[in-house]
This record gives sequence, structure tokens and C-alpha cells, in this order.
Amino acid sequence: MVEYAFLNGEIMPIENANLNITDLALLRGYGVFDFFKAIDGRPIFMEDHLDRFESSTWLLGLKIPYTRDELKKNILELVKLNKHKLLGIKLVCTGGYSIDGYAPAEKPNLFMVAKPFIMHPFEKELSLITVEHQRELAEIKSINYIKPISVLAQLRISEADDVLYYSDGYITESSRSNIFIVKNGLLVTPDTGILKGITRKKILQFASEILPIEIRPVKLEEVLEADEVFMTGSTKRITPITKIDNKSFQTGHFTRTLYNRLLVEENLS
Amino acid sequence: MVEYAFLNGEIMPIENANLNITDLALLRGYGVFDFFKAIDGRPIFMEDHLDRFESSTWLLGLKIPYTRDELKKNILELVKLNKHKLLGIKLVCTGGYSIDGYAPAEKPNLFMVAKPFIMHPFEKELSLITVEHQRELAEIKSINYIKPISVLAQLRISEADDVLYYSDGYITESSRSNIFIVKNGLLVTPDTGILKGITRKKILQFASEILPIEIRPVKLEEVLEADEVFMTGSTKRITPITKIDNKSFQTGHFTRTLYNRLLVEENLS
Repeated sequence: MVEYAFLNGEIMPIENANLNITDLALLRGYGVFDFFKAIDGRPIFMEDHLDRFESSTWLLGLKIPYTRDELKKNILELVKLNKHKLLGIKLVCTGGYSIDGYAPAEKPNLFMVAKPFIMHPFEKELSLITVEHQRELAEIKSINYIKPISVLAQLRISEADDVLYYSDGYITESSRSNIFIVKNGLLVTPDTGILKGITRKKILQFASEILPIEIRPVKLEEVLEADEVFMTGSTKRITPITKIDNKSFQTGHFTRTLYNRLLVEENLS
Repeated sequence: MVEYAFLNGEIMPIENANLNITDLALLRGYGVFDFFKAIDGRPIFMEDHLDRFESSTWLLGLKIPYTRDELKKNILELVKLNKHKLLGIKLVCTGGYSIDGYAPAEKPNLFMVAKPFIMHPFEKELSLITVEHQRELAEIKSINYIKPISVLAQLRISEADDVLYYSDGYITESSRSNIFIVKNGLLVTPDTGILKGITRKKILQFASEILPIEIRPVKLEEVLEADEVFMTGSTKRITPITKIDNKSFQTGHFTRTLYNRLLVEENLS
């Protein structure tokens, strides 16, 4: 089956979707993206993701050369062409064909792909290793993933699935997910040094109906002493963390309740 | 005149040198590069730059699919085809066409361009603004330039040319250059949190014939009280810094002496 992509205004087979080597993402890693899923042809929380995509591009001085409606029309067309029950839709906006190889071009390059993927099942174990790191310009969903990709070999050796970043004793996030803990019936998650996830946003909108919330700096030692720890994101929804370094965790009642409630929100999207 | 580039084993007109949007530099900013100049068809300090390029790729787990001799043969061919008195040669190695859009591919994508550029003249004023920032994985010449490119607008407003990074009160480097100061007849430059430049390396090899050297952490306030401040790099050689924030500097005797000596080294290269 042909897989289709969108590139600079046109939908085409992905193998034809090429960019010249003078693109500023290739030369200087300069670009932003966003990612969301479509279930049975229905994009989930698309407007929230497009809001964040616009915010990321704006913060890096990139001007999306399409209206929101044009983006949405092409996303829906891609979803229709790439027939899979579960699709991950990625939008990428780069600095374009820079004249001097450094300053962004007047017009960025913008592409979108829609690929099938497998959701992390709620029951599947997920272990993290702590890594001291603070993502730069954390509030921007930039394409810079050099740090977490460079530690993939270390993850394999540790038989871990992903990283938990901390800095100065406080946790921030995982490589592509936000982190929440439950301790003594209280839901706690950090607010600074992180990318503000859309799944995180949805949880913070409904969680106070289930348990009280504290949004504040979270010490790594608090995480290790928590009753429940979970991570959140579009491809993971809410996933219990079963191990951090050598410390194991049980999947708790609140994590499961929040997960079930998130499914309801997705169905309403 | 047609401009030629090298891409994955072939030399071709640069407008034909395209990569698919599934390349890991486009999706995840995952890539490294190196850059050096060729004067009158003669590459300057090429072996040092290829050493560093190999080191950067190795540190990110990328395997260059060519021997050193194959790389050199193609560099020399590009230099011959792109006839300019002064060429900047850039080699880029990316994570390749990743299967899952995250883990590097078995085979990277590797391309090289050779473009004319204008050297920053020694006498031209050059001003910096201080920016608190620590480049991640500083010892790797990665393609991640999101931070300095995102402050280009701020540089324009401040009428400054570039940034001077500092962190916890200590300076590290500029966006694409190393920093040296001269104070009381002593040459001082930092050694950690920086990319170790090839021009820096050359200077450290010969400078002790001219003045004593200290390689150690350098406080920002020391820089602001220095007698001479200069930055170094392939496109700048040794360039006196004339202003940092609101503080002005004169071009000093030692900066000029080191510059003249560097020209001799380049001629011997």
C-alpha cells in the first residue's frame, strides 16, 4: 500500500517527499514538530496540538505558510489515504532553505506524515533510568532529540525503556512524555523545565474530580518514594511506570481511574 | 556555474542532492558535522577536522560508511569542481532513514557541500552579547543550533554579531567560535563545556612561544576586565572582540601577533 505524505503544499507518496540538503533542519537541526494520533480516521485533540505547533513555530520565528483550515484539510486527507486503525500524525516545520546556512529562510519547509504505530499497552511493564539533563528551550517542541537518542545504547544495556530527566535534584520529564506521581492520595506533577503535553493538559482538566492536584517542583527522591508513578503522552495515554533505576512500583488505583477517564475524553474528541 | 555536492557516495549538482523526509536529522535533529576551509584549492587542517568528525560520529553511535581516503578523495574532487578562491567545506552525517523515526538507521546519510564564503576581516569590529546557556553534549559538533539561531532577532536589536555563552558565572564559547582572553601578558581560555576548535588547538600548540598559557575555567567578570579578547574558528581565524554587552575592548598586540603566526601555520597546512 502506498504511504502518503504532505510536503510544501502537496500530498504525494512518501518516497517522493524529499528536501534538499540545504534545509536548515539538516544543516543546523532547526525545526519544530508536533504529533498526535488518529483512531479510526478521527484525529484526537487535534486543535490542542495545532495550537502548540503554532506556538512552537512562533517561538522559533518560523511562519507557517498555511491557514489552520488548510493544515486540517490536508491532515484529514492524509488520514483518509493512509488507511490504518491507529495512525500517528507528525507535522514538522523547519527553517527552510537558508541562504547562508544559518539564518532561517523567509519560507519554512513544512511536511506531515501519517504512520501506523502500536500503542503502549496499559498493562505492559515500563522502566526508566534517571539521567541528569535539562532539555534546552523545554517549552518548545523542537526536533532536538540528540541527548535521548544518544543514550539508547545505555537503555539497552540497562534493559530500560526510557529516561527520566532530572536536574539539581528535581525531575522534569521523560524523553517524550510527562511524569505524574501519586502520594498519599495527592496527584503531583512539575510545571517548569518541561514540554507541556496535551495529554498532561487533559489530565489536569479532569483529575481534580478524582483526587486533589499539586502542580509544583518535584524532587527525584519524592518520585522514588511515591505510591504510583505514571507517564503521559499521545502514544502512551497514561502508562504506569513499573521501575525507576532499581526501585519498583505497583500500578495503583488512581492511575487506572485516570486512564479510564482519559479514554472517555478521547472518545469525546 | 553549477555547484556540486556529495551525497551518499555520489557527487552531483547540489539542487539534485535531496534526502527523504524520514531522515533522522529532519525528524529528530540527529546529526553531526564538521567544517573547514580550502584556500586556492588547498584544504586547511583537513586531517584535524576529519579526526574530530570521526570522533563526533562515534560519540553519537553513527558509522561513517567511507574510509578516510574515500572522504578525502571526494573532498578534493568537490574543491576542484567548485572553483572559488575561498571555500567552506561542510561534512554532515545524520542518523539516516530511521525505521521507527527515533533510533538511528544502520547506515547514516552523509553529505558534503563546498561553498564560497567571505572571511571575517581581522580589522572589522565584532560585538557579542552575553547569553546564559550551556550547550548540551558540548564536546560533540552536533547540528543542534536551535539556541543561537533563536536569538538572531535579539542580536539584530542589540546590533551585536554573536553570543557569548556563560553558565554559573563562567564563560564557555560563542555560537561557532572559541574564546581567549589576554590579561597581564597571560593567555587564558576555558577547557570544559566547549567544543574544542581546531583553530583553538593550533593556537595552543604555538602560543607558548609568544606568551604563557593558562587553560582553566574563566569567569565572565575576568573576560570583562581583560586587556584583549578574541574569538577563534575556521571562518574567523583569530578575530578581536571589540565589544561585549556595553564593555569595549581594543585590539591588542598579542592578538595581532597570534593572528600573524596562525597565518604561517595555515600556509604550512
